This record gives sequence, C-alpha cells and structure tokens, in this order.
Amino acid sequence: MTQPLSTTARTTITRDRERGRTDRADLYGVLDSGLVCHLGIVRDGGPVVLPTGYGRIGDTVYVHGSTGAGYLRIIDGTPVCLTVTHVDGIVYARSVFHHSMNYRSAVVLADARVVRDADERWNALEAITEQLAPGSWEHARRPHPKELAATAVIAIDLSEASVKMRVGPPVDDAADVEEGGRWAGVLPVRPAFDGAQTCPTLPSDEKVPAHVTARASG
Amino acid sequence: MTQPLSTTARTTITRDRERGRTDRADLYGVLDSGLVCHLGIVRDGGPVVLPTGYGRIGDTVYVHGSTGAGYLRIIDGTPVCLTVTHVDGIVYARSVFHHSMNYRSAVVLADARVVRDADERWNALEAITEQLAPGSWEHARRPHPKELAATAVIAIDLSEASVKMRVGPPVDDAADVEEGGRWAGVLPVRPAFDGAQTCPTLPSDEKVPAHVTARASG
Repeated sequence: MTQPLSTTARTTITRDRERGRTDRADLYGVLDSGLVCHLGIVRDGGPVVLPTGYGRIGDTVYVHGSTGAGYLRIIDGTPVCLTVTHVDGIVYARSVFHHSMNYRSAVVLADARVVRDADERWNALEAITEQLAPGSWEHARRPHPKELAATAVIAIDLSEASVKMRVGPPVDDAADVEEGGRWAGVLPVRPAFDGAQTCPTLPSDEKVPAHVTARASG
Repeated sequence: MTQPLSTTARTTITRDRERGRTDRADLYGVLDSGLVCHLGIVRDGGPVVLPTGYGRIGDTVYVHGSTGAGYLRIIDGTPVCLTVTHVDGIVYARSVFHHSMNYRSAVVLADARVVRDADERWNALEAITEQLAPGSWEHARRPHPKELAATAVIAIDLSEASVKMRVGPPVDDAADVEEGGRWAGVLPVRPAFDGAQTCPTLPSDEKVPAHVTARASG
C-alpha cells in the first residue's frame, strides 16, 4: 500500500511533471538520506535560506539551533520551506540546452512550530543526532539540562510536500543524435566518506568505533 | 589585496562569529566549487526554496530556467536568497551537544533581475553550463534561437553576502575530555565522481572525452 503525498495546489509540480513523485515513501527516502537541509524563512519581507542539520520522526521533520539564533526566535507559527537535495549525476547532452542533473529533491511547506514538550524535544534531538551521526546518541554523552535550555527545537509537518527526481541518460533532440560527433552520457556523483580523523586530544592510534568506521566504508 | 564582502546588517554574522569570513575570495571559492544552489523566493507571503544550477561572472551569479516556470515569471525585481553549501565533514564530539558539521556556505541576498540583453544572456548560459559541466560549452552544440527564447536568465548581484565555514576537530567540554572513554573526531565527506556512463544511443566503447574523464579522476 502506498500513501499519497496529498499535494496541494502549491506543491503540485507544474514543470517536468514526469519527474514528480507522489508517494510518501519517496519523500521519506529523500529526507532520510540527507545530511543537510536548506531552510527558508521570510525576514523583513525577503527570503533567507540557511543550511542546517535535521532529523525525521514519522511525518515531522525537526531542526534545532541555539536559542540565541535570531531566526529561531521569530520562526514560531511562521511559514517555512525545508528543501533537501541530492545531486546524483551530471547529465552531458549533445546540446548545451539538454544538459541537466540527475537529482532527488524534496520541498516541504509548513508553518514552523517551536517544540516545548520535553519528551518531544528529547526525541527530536535524538533524531537530529542520528541523522547526522548514526550511533552517536548511544556513544556520546547526552544533553545536560543546561545544554537543553540553550537549544531550540523546531517541528515542520510533512503534510504538504513535493518530491522530484531525474534519473537516466540525457534526452537529446533527434537531429543532434543523428548528426553525431559529440559524446553524451552521465557522470555519477555521490557523497564519499574518507577515513576518520581522530581528535588530536586523543592518542592517534585510538580505535575508531564501529558506528563511524561502518560509515566510512559505505 | 583582499576585497571585503562589505556586509550589511542583515548579512552580519551574529552566531558563531569565528566561523564568519569577510573576504570576497572566500565567497568566490564557495560559489565556484558548487554544483547546485538553493534559491529562496517569497510566494504568497511564504518562502519557497528550490535547488538549481548556477554560474558566476565577476560579482554576479546567474540561474536559468524555462520561461514557463511559474517562479521565474514573478521573480523580476523581487528579493531572493541564493545559498550554496558544501558539507566537508561530520564532527563527532564526546557530547551530542557539540556534534557539528564542517562546512562552507555562502548566503547571498539581492533583488533578482531578469536579464534581457542578448550578450549578457549568452555569457550567463556559458557560465552556468561550465559550472555544471566544464568543457561542455566547447564540446556540445550551443543554443539555437528557439532554445534561447524558451530560457529565462536571472541575475543575482553579489554585493550583499555572508560566508561561513567550520573546519577542524570537535571542541569538547573540558570535563568530557578528562572523563575519557568516548571517541571524538571528524569523518571527512566530499562529492566523488564515478566512471562516466556513456549514453545508450552511442556505442558502449565510445571514447569518453578528456573534459569528462579529467573530472572523474578529480
């Protein structure tokens, strides 16, 4: 059983409709494999787009920040847009016009909600930590009350979202294919983790734990 | 000689000030090494953040799209925010609270300008193409008049921008360092290009040109 994204007019894809996805599983897939989202807010009538970590629990995405951050103090109840993008490949076509990217992106529109419930805040911080650094909620020291007091948690509901993907080779004009003489194809791109760099405050031969090494080889 | 970013109040960094950069060379560095930007606009009073390719010429960044795209038809003269982010590493601290990312980001605020001059549009399309696929402006067929007519080009001035970077190991509380027993360090992450996939409409042993192979090994 697939669950529709239940798009509204403003999340209905109007360009390149064949790239649209309408299943919530696609939305979760894009969100769960990202490291950073781009969060858009409106400040003094103009947009501001900031990169930040995030985490998902069910149909809510959480972001966090210092209670001192200006934008987090004005965000409660205001419209936000949270976008996550993965670039999967550079699409080289015979023509410049048909050059493109293979990508997966999710665009979420919602009114932000500052989370005040202690349990929801705790669970959100776990989700944000685990999205960034799987295994760290277990391995690292969890937040002190003083650290919690300095942290704002924002919830963004997933009920209004759109997902777009492009996959596959370039799509060229027939005349350019017939003419020949030009290479076309895809150069795949992915995030690669290199070997872990142990903190200089630890012995250089300190064993890197499995939850980190597992990722480096992934 | 370094040239300052000439930040205004709204691009003055208030949080984690030590992460701020104030030289235009840092701004160019962040912009010139990216594949995708996140462009924020305001639509019906709320923010919308869309991923798109881009290119830079001097102190202007250009984006393009179909003239049929809704957002490009309303963007002229309106405030936009263009953000480019590179994630360079996952920072594992002894505490969840001090977990972080190493990153470089640029946030540009400007009123968008629809480009109508034919020469500026042509040069912008070259810059956007070369940012995405270096060498393709030379190798691929350049735009036909009909393709040009279907393409909107938007200019975003770089006079108001901020750049933030985090580098280096985790910064832990002294008490957590003394207590010991927990690994801390950085897991570097970078975009990796894999081997080029030649378009199925070409012979599978078609030679991949140097401007593509050079990148795959980069």
